[in-house]
Amino acid sequence: MAKIFKGKEVSDALTEKLLDEVNVLKGINIKPALAIIRVGSNVEDLSYEESATKRCEKAGIHVEKFIFPEDISQASLLDIIYSINNDDSIHGALLFRPLPEQLNDHIIRSALAPHKDVDGITDISMAGVYASSDMGFPPCTARACMEILDFYGIDVYGKNVVIIGRSLVVGKPVAMMALKNNGTVTICHTKTINIEKIAAGADILIVAAGAAKVVGPAYINENQIIIDAGINFTPEGILCGDVDFEKVEPLVKAITPVPGGVGTVTTGVLLLQIVEAAKKAAVKLEI
Amino acid sequence: MAKIFKGKEVSDALTEKLLDEVNVLKGINIKPALAIIRVGSNVEDLSYEESATKRCEKAGIHVEKFIFPEDISQASLLDIIYSINNDDSIHGALLFRPLPEQLNDHIIRSALAPHKDVDGITDISMAGVYASSDMGFPPCTARACMEILDFYGIDVYGKNVVIIGRSLVVGKPVAMMALKNNGTVTICHTKTINIEKIAAGADILIVAAGAAKVVGPAYINENQIIIDAGINFTPEGILCGDVDFEKVEPLVKAITPVPGGVGTVTTGVLLLQIVEAAKKAAVKLEI
Repeated sequence: MAKIFKGKEVSDALTEKLLDEVNVLKGINIKPALAIIRVGSNVEDLSYEESATKRCEKAGIHVEKFIFPEDISQASLLDIIYSINNDDSIHGALLFRPLPEQLNDHIIRSALAPHKDVDGITDISMAGVYASSDMGFPPCTARACMEILDFYGIDVYGKNVVIIGRSLVVGKPVAMMALKNNGTVTICHTKTINIEKIAAGADILIVAAGAAKVVGPAYINENQIIIDAGINFTPEGILCGDVDFEKVEPLVKAITPVPGGVGTVTTGVLLLQIVEAAKKAAVKLEI
Repeated sequence: MAKIFKGKEVSDALTEKLLDEVNVLKGINIKPALAIIRVGSNVEDLSYEESATKRCEKAGIHVEKFIFPEDISQASLLDIIYSINNDDSIHGALLFRPLPEQLNDHIIRSALAPHKDVDGITDISMAGVYASSDMGFPPCTARACMEILDFYGIDVYGKNVVIIGRSLVVGKPVAMMALKNNGTVTICHTKTINIEKIAAGADILIVAAGAAKVVGPAYINENQIIIDAGINFTPEGILCGDVDFEKVEPLVKAITPVPGGVGTVTTGVLLLQIVEAAKKAAVKLEI
């Protein structure tokens, strides 16, 4: 039986740390604030918006919503982003994507000021993650994986960290963060040959394959720690991860469940990064 | 006996390709041009400057030199970079680093226009390499490793590519480029445990460890392709790579020598990227 790494425990710890910092900021008259920018009414966006808003309000973070119809022009959306960049009362911005076709994803993303880019979508945030330098922010889901390891005392130093998936949202940034912490990092993907054997050699297996229950008993070893960043639905409509939890959980040392794992921590990281952005802005003002 | 992957063969092929493109550009009245920016008179910088200048002139690429004393101010150097950015007759810029202490490396690097950043030192070039998008350029040495594999018909698709070293000049960009080409990529470094075993499992081993002859027979297998990006000197003052060539060469399938391997291709890649920058500028002008 594996130890279950519970997202709620990690998220609660992040929130506790956060509340202290929000209070410190309030003491100097700063209320951390998030701008949510949503084009259209995608169901998943609405669901994340609702939970993020609730969590923000509970933590004393103000949320300002910028909601637009599907057919908004690129110029109009850019104007909104520029005004958010210039508004000192807003510290972070969350932009739901993918965007409708008339909007150039790269131009829109690049318009956001990196110091307000709390979900790591700008080029500068990406360069910061890649170069391990303090620019912008990593994507929340990627950092959530690392925060879970950290909370449960798992140091990646010298460990074999195998990552399945090479997206800019999880696979690549997690690889860079694990490398920064001195892990030996292997990145696997759909073209990897012998993926089961490579995964089974991992001390820590981070899965962001984007396919339901693909990681089964052939991918693991009994001392393994598994972080499952997958969010999928079974044909029966049940939420599940990229790991076949029922089969794998009894055979490994520790694992995150889905739901209740990485996804639960992602919003906590978003809040943390908003507060970090507000703190950086406060330091800048003092200088 | 391994096949020796000779840098000169790769470099000659790049030059041949280049000459055609330089001629096409001349046909539309564009002479590709490189700005070399050097602060002080570091011996290694002078040596690279001399060989790059010769190679450029031979290929029909104009070189303009911007040479400054060690004590140049940041403001003055920034002004030079801005003027290079705005000069349509210059297509690429090579800035020797490290810079003297009074100059902030990140501020200076960031001032260069990414489309003229032919050695991949700006944040936007790094984001481009990281995200596999067409922004800026990769560092010349990293691309040289990939050009060698390409010239000798080695496809990394599905191969286990192990990289020793995690620098921004070779290790990380090579990892991203190999990943883009569908290799399964492992990044090792000084904190890696069992590095010999991991390296010995590689189909392709790319070494950028920065230490003389550290890779010996324990790191290899008989079907292995080795790219050695190391440049070191033995205690006797003899140029050598990161691989113990004499011991390893008889035991692997193919290997690059030092000297005569990656280093020889690096300047060829620099020339290629200057011409690519000039072509992009020409396309922009036409639009």
